Amino acid sequence: MKPIKTAISPTREKNYAEWYQQVIRAADLAENSPVRGCMVIKPWGYAIWEQMQAALDSMIKETGHVNAYFPLFIPKSFFEKEAAHVEGFAKECAVVTHSRLVPDGKGGLKPASPLEEALIVRPTSETIIGESFSRWIQSYRDLPLLINQWANVVRWEMRTRLFLRTSEFLWQEGHTAHASQEEAEEEAMRMLDVYRVFAEEHMAMPVICGKKPESERFPGAVETLAIEAMMQDGKALQAGTSHFLGQNFARACNIQFTDPDGKSTHAWTTSWGVSTRLMGGLIMVHSDDNGLMLPPRLAPQQIVILPVLHNTEEMQAILDYCETLRCRLCEKTFNGQALRVFVDIRDRRGGEKSWEWIKKGVPIRVEAGTRELQSGHVSIARRDTGQKSLQQIDEFVEKAEALLIDIQESLFQRATEFRMQKSKRIKSHAEFEEFFRGEGGGFAETFFAFDGETEEKIRSMGITARCMPLATESQTGPCFVHPDRPGRLVIWAKSY
Amino acid sequence: MKPIKTAISPTREKNYAEWYQQVIRAADLAENSPVRGCMVIKPWGYAIWEQMQAALDSMIKETGHVNAYFPLFIPKSFFEKEAAHVEGFAKECAVVTHSRLVPDGKGGLKPASPLEEALIVRPTSETIIGESFSRWIQSYRDLPLLINQWANVVRWEMRTRLFLRTSEFLWQEGHTAHASQEEAEEEAMRMLDVYRVFAEEHMAMPVICGKKPESERFPGAVETLAIEAMMQDGKALQAGTSHFLGQNFARACNIQFTDPDGKSTHAWTTSWGVSTRLMGGLIMVHSDDNGLMLPPRLAPQQIVILPVLHNTEEMQAILDYCETLRCRLCEKTFNGQALRVFVDIRDRRGGEKSWEWIKKGVPIRVEAGTRELQSGHVSIARRDTGQKSLQQIDEFVEKAEALLIDIQESLFQRATEFRMQKSKRIKSHAEFEEFFRGEGGGFAETFFAFDGETEEKIRSMGITARCMPLATESQTGPCFVHPDRPGRLVIWAKSY
Repeated sequence: MKPIKTAISPTREKNYAEWYQQVIRAADLAENSPVRGCMVIKPWGYAIWEQMQAALDSMIKETGHVNAYFPLFIPKSFFEKEAAHVEGFAKECAVVTHSRLVPDGKGGLKPASPLEEALIVRPTSETIIGESFSRWIQSYRDLPLLINQWANVVRWEMRTRLFLRTSEFLWQEGHTAHASQEEAEEEAMRMLDVYRVFAEEHMAMPVICGKKPESERFPGAVETLAIEAMMQDGKALQAGTSHFLGQNFARACNIQFTDPDGKSTHAWTTSWGVSTRLMGGLIMVHSDDNGLMLPPRLAPQQIVILPVLHNTEEMQAILDYCETLRCRLCEKTFNGQALRVFVDIRDRRGGEKSWEWIKKGVPIRVEAGTRELQSGHVSIARRDTGQKSLQQIDEFVEKAEALLIDIQESLFQRATEFRMQKSKRIKSHAEFEEFFRGEGGGFAETFFAFDGETEEKIRSMGITARCMPLATESQTGPCFVHPDRPGRLVIWAKSY
Repeated sequence: MKPIKTAISPTREKNYAEWYQQVIRAADLAENSPVRGCMVIKPWGYAIWEQMQAALDSMIKETGHVNAYFPLFIPKSFFEKEAAHVEGFAKECAVVTHSRLVPDGKGGLKPASPLEEALIVRPTSETIIGESFSRWIQSYRDLPLLINQWANVVRWEMRTRLFLRTSEFLWQEGHTAHASQEEAEEEAMRMLDVYRVFAEEHMAMPVICGKKPESERFPGAVETLAIEAMMQDGKALQAGTSHFLGQNFARACNIQFTDPDGKSTHAWTTSWGVSTRLMGGLIMVHSDDNGLMLPPRLAPQQIVILPVLHNTEEMQAILDYCETLRCRLCEKTFNGQALRVFVDIRDRRGGEKSWEWIKKGVPIRVEAGTRELQSGHVSIARRDTGQKSLQQIDEFVEKAEALLIDIQESLFQRATEFRMQKSKRIKSHAEFEEFFRGEGGGFAETFFAFDGETEEKIRSMGITARCMPLATESQTGPCFVHPDRPGRLVIWAKSY
């Protein structure tokens, strides 16, 4: 059989890692920059990120949080306050040591004016925001304090990959302080659920909500919750985390409040974040060998109209036909917002334009030429199924929203089924090894009685305990390694 | 006469600089952070900035630009490419030299893993974006390239002041490339006008559009255009700039394109930006001795409803009355968007709450208690005039939009009149000195035949040539210093 020609080469099956890079290139989402590990997010990639931001931002505000902005730099002494935190972030951070460049005498410049205290470009902001919280919070009346920040952060990663792991990335980081442990724990859980809803309903990406094992916790956290998604190669992507920080950072940053009885107590804090890493998840969950596939809710353009202009006589009539269609569609809504529709009148070959929008993942393409104009139809193509159909123009306008809903749901359905197929309940270590042999794998569900030695051994196979799913938290059973010990339900996978 | 007690002390008249700081504190907009020169933008301040961003972002998109994101760091070698640029920014920049912190043996941390090449935290992004442009642009078909970025930037300022001058600030920076000089010049002019419209229609802040004198140009620009606003102390604030960069950065960054004849040419570029400095302008143009005064278009809450709950029996009825009012108002629009209305049910004294919203600058306060409930009225207070009135609730709902429009226009009107009063056409050097004597001043309009020596002498008085207004560009007249020489119309002022 002759292989089918695809827009993306290599295919997912041939070389998944390279396919990922090529999808990003074909959809013009981002590129590596000359600055080590930093990426340039190109307009189409950034437009998707803006859709994500807008949706998440309103969900964060609806749950009572307000946005603020804190300094990019963290004084070294702040950084030193929380031991586990230092341990986690000191190894890979950008350090500012000078405040001036002067001629080096060789035609170039050299750093000058050394700083009294080195500054760290924030890898996360617990310590610098904690300093503000320590001043803002005096009484129980000041609690809860519910703050979010949209910002760039820097972690000096050694091996980087566009969106998934970059030295600089964009994110939101929530930071909250509460009067009681229970309230802080509830907050961490609430925000995890916000992330789940966002991932599932906006990104059409099913996720498992779970607790991280101790070895995978955020440095300084008492408990780390995460959403884990499965990519098309069966690997897991940690797509968002929510941390219950106990009183660790409150102690480190001196966040104290006077309770109603006049007693001074440390506050209980949380932090939670998602980043441009979500873009990597979006790409890897839905794309195929022809490029990106966008869920309608996050598509910067949900419908692209391509006028087919072979016959120059009817050119203006076709353009008008397309523009009228756009106007009619823009009056319709999807997910409570006006449809986002674009008429591509650029002077390019029709096939070239069509392929460009396929690769960019636009959910619906509409073509209209002489044939469609004369019969009052439009030619519709769905990006997700590839289905093409000729439809009455009125009917299409009427059903456009339903079609987008169907695409959104189908993508979620497909990803959910894929995850089910690639997930397996595993009872023995032999079965576990078999499951992950070669390129195989997926999510292995086991009962596991945590012991560091076994975890380390499995980690050396490139597999980690992703989480203990919240939905099955109460279940226990015989450990798959040491059946004499009772274990908790754990999901294992290779991961990004 | 007994002095009137004001919420802000000192008053504008007593100590304008200190008054400014106190307005920021009273409105809870921002504060100095422990990181030298960096500020914390607090929730109310950030919410205003978000309103600014949303309005500006849509204006930038409507003029054909798309957003993207480029690295925070600029390699030292990039920075060295444009001589004037280096001259302008090398003196005050944050330099990253290490990528790791290790124990210093004294219980602290010290920088380790020195970088091969130092990185500069972007003070502006011409050189790093130029590098991308040099790869993205090949043919005239790739032009114009119209990019905008929302980002943080760092300039190591020596004397900082909240919003007006901080080491780190937030801004948008537009960067565009064009096939011809004319087109690039038009672009720079178009974006200046976008800034004018934003300043005047959204911020209610009148501005003068003009060209900067050579001495005040952006480092590397051929022409710098600016909008200049007058603050209540008569000083000028440069509120936004738009630069025609000629081919300077195209040459430095090697941005070349093949024209239709197959000839290779350097592109013509522009850049333009406004920053959180606008917040400083907003505060200084409209606030009074009771605090901030927000133009309705940028107010995070346009109307605050304060239930007056003396009589506990009617408490629930009053709360319902207020909530119903809020729902009715939220169905109304102002400037094409739903009204932003907040019911303040916090357990505080009424007077305390009322003063808080006065200081925060909310355009309209509504009080409703037993009296209002029983008669179907509401008590209305305008922040701008201080006027209070009792109104039929239906009438108020019906007229809320008109009231907000009136407040928006009144603020603009007031600021415009103030600027007129403080502006003077000046014909001689003696008159000029008289105008700026002591705390006096404002905008002095003169004909001026530029000569460096005179400019320097005037600069030593703390006065600079703010701009040559575009509206009067063609006018010439005898220079106010050397009347034998023909001069151009120039605005002079003390400035921020």
